[in-house]
Amino acid sequence: MTRGSGGLVSTLLPVMETVNGTWIASAMSSEDVEVAKTFKNNCVPIPEDKPLFRVPFVIVDRDRYEKYYSVISNPLLWFVQHYMWNPAYTPEIDDKIHDAWDDGYKYVNRKFAEKIVKESDFNEKKPLIILQDYHLYLCPKFIREKLGDIFLSQFIHIPWPQPEYFCIIPDYMEEAIIKGLLSNDIVGFHIEKYVKNFLRTCEKYADYVDLESNIVKYEERTIYVRNYPISVDDQGLLKLSHSKEVSKKEEIIRKIKGDNFLLYRTDRADLSKNIIRGFKAYELFLEKHPEYIGKIKFLSTGKPTRQQIKEYRDYKDDIDQTIEKINKKYSTDNWKPIEQIFKADYSLVAAAFKNYDCLMVNPICDGMNIVSKEGSVINENNGILILSEHAGSYEELKDYSLNVNPFDVTQTAEAIYQAVSMKSKEREDRLNGLKKIVKERNIYNWVAEQFDDIEKLFR
Amino acid sequence: MTRGSGGLVSTLLPVMETVNGTWIASAMSSEDVEVAKTFKNNCVPIPEDKPLFRVPFVIVDRDRYEKYYSVISNPLLWFVQHYMWNPAYTPEIDDKIHDAWDDGYKYVNRKFAEKIVKESDFNEKKPLIILQDYHLYLCPKFIREKLGDIFLSQFIHIPWPQPEYFCIIPDYMEEAIIKGLLSNDIVGFHIEKYVKNFLRTCEKYADYVDLESNIVKYEERTIYVRNYPISVDDQGLLKLSHSKEVSKKEEIIRKIKGDNFLLYRTDRADLSKNIIRGFKAYELFLEKHPEYIGKIKFLSTGKPTRQQIKEYRDYKDDIDQTIEKINKKYSTDNWKPIEQIFKADYSLVAAAFKNYDCLMVNPICDGMNIVSKEGSVINENNGILILSEHAGSYEELKDYSLNVNPFDVTQTAEAIYQAVSMKSKEREDRLNGLKKIVKERNIYNWVAEQFDDIEKLFR
Repeated sequence: MTRGSGGLVSTLLPVMETVNGTWIASAMSSEDVEVAKTFKNNCVPIPEDKPLFRVPFVIVDRDRYEKYYSVISNPLLWFVQHYMWNPAYTPEIDDKIHDAWDDGYKYVNRKFAEKIVKESDFNEKKPLIILQDYHLYLCPKFIREKLGDIFLSQFIHIPWPQPEYFCIIPDYMEEAIIKGLLSNDIVGFHIEKYVKNFLRTCEKYADYVDLESNIVKYEERTIYVRNYPISVDDQGLLKLSHSKEVSKKEEIIRKIKGDNFLLYRTDRADLSKNIIRGFKAYELFLEKHPEYIGKIKFLSTGKPTRQQIKEYRDYKDDIDQTIEKINKKYSTDNWKPIEQIFKADYSLVAAAFKNYDCLMVNPICDGMNIVSKEGSVINENNGILILSEHAGSYEELKDYSLNVNPFDVTQTAEAIYQAVSMKSKEREDRLNGLKKIVKERNIYNWVAEQFDDIEKLFR
Repeated sequence: MTRGSGGLVSTLLPVMETVNGTWIASAMSSEDVEVAKTFKNNCVPIPEDKPLFRVPFVIVDRDRYEKYYSVISNPLLWFVQHYMWNPAYTPEIDDKIHDAWDDGYKYVNRKFAEKIVKESDFNEKKPLIILQDYHLYLCPKFIREKLGDIFLSQFIHIPWPQPEYFCIIPDYMEEAIIKGLLSNDIVGFHIEKYVKNFLRTCEKYADYVDLESNIVKYEERTIYVRNYPISVDDQGLLKLSHSKEVSKKEEIIRKIKGDNFLLYRTDRADLSKNIIRGFKAYELFLEKHPEYIGKIKFLSTGKPTRQQIKEYRDYKDDIDQTIEKINKKYSTDNWKPIEQIFKADYSLVAAAFKNYDCLMVNPICDGMNIVSKEGSVINENNGILILSEHAGSYEELKDYSLNVNPFDVTQTAEAIYQAVSMKSKEREDRLNGLKKIVKERNIYNWVAEQFDDIEKLFR
């Protein structure tokens, strides 16, 4: 068993270890299924020898799981919530998608609800059920139907788009999603913008929506829509970054860096991450400032993601071709403009965080973007942050980052030039500013704020 | 000289003939330039022998015109306002686009302003300047700088998207566009939805935005944002549809129709028109209801459009391939499922309007969609209207049309089935409903409402 590659796992792990909770998860791979089946009730203790929390797995057949995960959750919902469809051509909502909704998404949400209801029975006191993310929009309604007056909250880790874009999906799906989410007592998002977009999407279905106090009235209940910007475990990250493992990986990074200015990025190869425009901006920078040829390197690490979906396979190919083209155009005998390490493990990423001169985070759309916070905490090189205005973390970090419109390749190239020519005093001030912000609100604050609200509103 | 192919020309021509105005236009083709140059001040009387109005042409060099028209206006602005970009890949805002803004869009807008200022001097009384559409966003500011306290209004014939999507374009362009538009006294859109989206986009720049009364305060002026849904010249259309020319073209249509149920569509081959999903829905309908093979025909007429832009050339190819594939799959010895007539003239279109059993209007996004109104006025065959929820005309026509989510191919196929199996009484009631709505608010009402507001607010 290995941990997933997304930002969500990184941020929730330390929380789960602290509260000794029950994490109900779905078995993603056939390996997950095999491991889960060796435990009673498919409930895996983690870590196995000295359990800090337990993971009862929801197991459904592969066919339905694929419909749930690789047709509806991704791409349909993920693409809609990240403004990522190409509307003249996609999505093409056909019988396959309608079927995947019923027989996949709805089915798995129901299975999750059943498992949660079952696990809830085991406890003596009223359980606190906290759902995570866009895979479980229908779950709260199914749970409330069974458990009635129970506390339910759900946190959405991805953006919520404006209602005109969300209604790309069929009406009946939109209605089920909104009514599902409104079965919670609290719905959480990273930033205020998503809260407002969600509230406006609710207007069609709710009895009353208050855009001032962010409250929805629906079926005689009050739903509180709140923003809790997720953060990182800054102390844990610092500890890790000073571990032997990371020190060892720093040798690899230093070898790549040499005397160069190290521009760095790390992402799942997701279309929302805007990896190609990042490289094109770098290419334009080299074209406009040839004096930096041989003096800068762009290191890119990442993990493959969602390769069962065509758009992702194509995107991965397009990234590789872009890198190849730029390397071919600018490489010299002893210098290569872009180095790519795919399938990098986290200690290598941490080593790169520690040593970059500039971190590029330029998503077209990103719920929060944890990388921008992790990098700022770990970096020891007065590293500059180039940050997209469309990353959730922009709201918190914008005063200390170099900000770009992610669609604007010219502006992004200029930001790289600004970074390479920035005086060390300004670099230091900016990094210190970033560090201060992230430390002031870490992952434990994110959790505490949510529990505080639960306490205040419902106990 | 021939008239343009867009809906705008069709609706404004009868207005211009009625008010004997001055229509300042830009010379689009080199033929336009040649003709214009044969008249004093490049001012063409129309019609030449017995002028009903005059057209002074703005002439700029081809290079700048291309930047203005085929880089910024289309695709950049048109795509942004129709949600038509493919954000993971396009737009790629590079030096070419930044240059086209300065040296094309801004330049031509200034030239227009100069021409308007010059033409305004010719009149004795204070002129009424009414600007049309998204090609002239910067013009009102340039005019006001010269003419000060003059009346300016602008009507936008395309949708206005929600602010989060509009900000795909660089900040400085957005700012110039909003401040340009806010130099008008009245800004008009087709429907309330676009009014609200525009007002929300203004919030960043204006002193005050009132979302209840649709008023903006900016630089000590009050700007009224209003909706005036455009309509058609119903009497003119009826007259035309009974002309000899159209009767002659009906022979062609009847020959194609034969004993078939005639499904019809007519569009510029624009990506926003959703032509491919329309054909795929038809394909799915034939697959699910093979009993209709040989009993239905899909006639598609249109005009080529914006072929200097790659996206449009690709889209035209994709349409042709889709048609070919379906025709190959379903054709029999004496029947072909889809007939396409490209470059159809308006009398042929009117002949098709008169005879269709069902008109498909399924755009992914459309400011108004005049076709849905023209067809409903002219049809004499109890013709059914399949209408996209994302067409502007949906707001007015939805009670009598069969409504579809344009992304939903399954639902669109079901709408075709509903149409072919609809009883004639329901068909008649629906068509009568549509005719009544369009007749009650024709193109002259559209003009009158605007002049009424000018009278009320400013005289």
